[in-house]
Amino acid sequence: VATVEELSREECFKLLQYRSYVGRIGFVIEGRPVVLPVNYIAERGSVFFCTEGGSKLSVASGGARVAFEVDDSKALYHSGWSVLVLGTAHEVTDADELARLRRGPLKSWAVHPSAHWVRVSIDTISGRRLPEV
Amino acid sequence: VATVEELSREECFKLLQYRSYVGRIGFVIEGRPVVLPVNYIAERGSVFFCTEGGSKLSVASGGARVAFEVDDSKALYHSGWSVLVLGTAHEVTDADELARLRRGPLKSWAVHPSAHWVRVSIDTISGRRLPEV
Repeated sequence: VATVEELSREECFKLLQYRSYVGRIGFVIEGRPVVLPVNYIAERGSVFFCTEGGSKLSVASGGARVAFEVDDSKALYHSGWSVLVLGTAHEVTDADELARLRRGPLKSWAVHPSAHWVRVSIDTISGRRLPEV
Repeated sequence: VATVEELSREECFKLLQYRSYVGRIGFVIEGRPVVLPVNYIAERGSVFFCTEGGSKLSVASGGARVAFEVDDSKALYHSGWSVLVLGTAHEVTDADELARLRRGPLKSWAVHPSAHWVRVSIDTISGRRLPEV
């Protein structure tokens, strides 16, 4: 059993951007937590992802407090890392910003880019590493 | 952009057991969602994991409603799957069951097996697959 190390803020941002294909968004519906994977992009102090209108996830975009998690692990070495963002989710409604996001590098695997975009503010970011033993 | 397929209950249980090294537990602290990775084992209609006493996660073990998520993805194919369990978390206090869990196959990478064990009831299980395009 290895000892968990706290990651610096800088390391957390680096890992958040390096793993920019799948993360997990945690949100609360009627008092219950829900966790779902999303494709995402991290930039400018925010995490962005796409969602279908009417989906469970879309209810989290109206100013809801959300968690966003990315991790990676090596089973053979019992090692890994994780980064956790706590923030607030808002649907992107500004036409210029929407156009920029739709042109940008993030192509969701499941959601057409014409769908809704959600911005999660990075209010706090923290992370942990479990080194190889 | 591929079309998301719902997984059957049987497929969900199979994937939950197949991926039995890292999952993510979602819980609520003071109204805010938090998501953290854990090593886990799935059996008998429950998910079990270890946690250190006094950790953030330990507050989720007193009958809290939690979410538990596992996923896997292939970036090259823009494909993947995820399984979501919704349930209730309770610390395992029965001496026989604790002894069984501590002898069992799950060796947490970060938490010594002498630490607290938490059982999450599998109240609902659902999953989705994004096929290769």
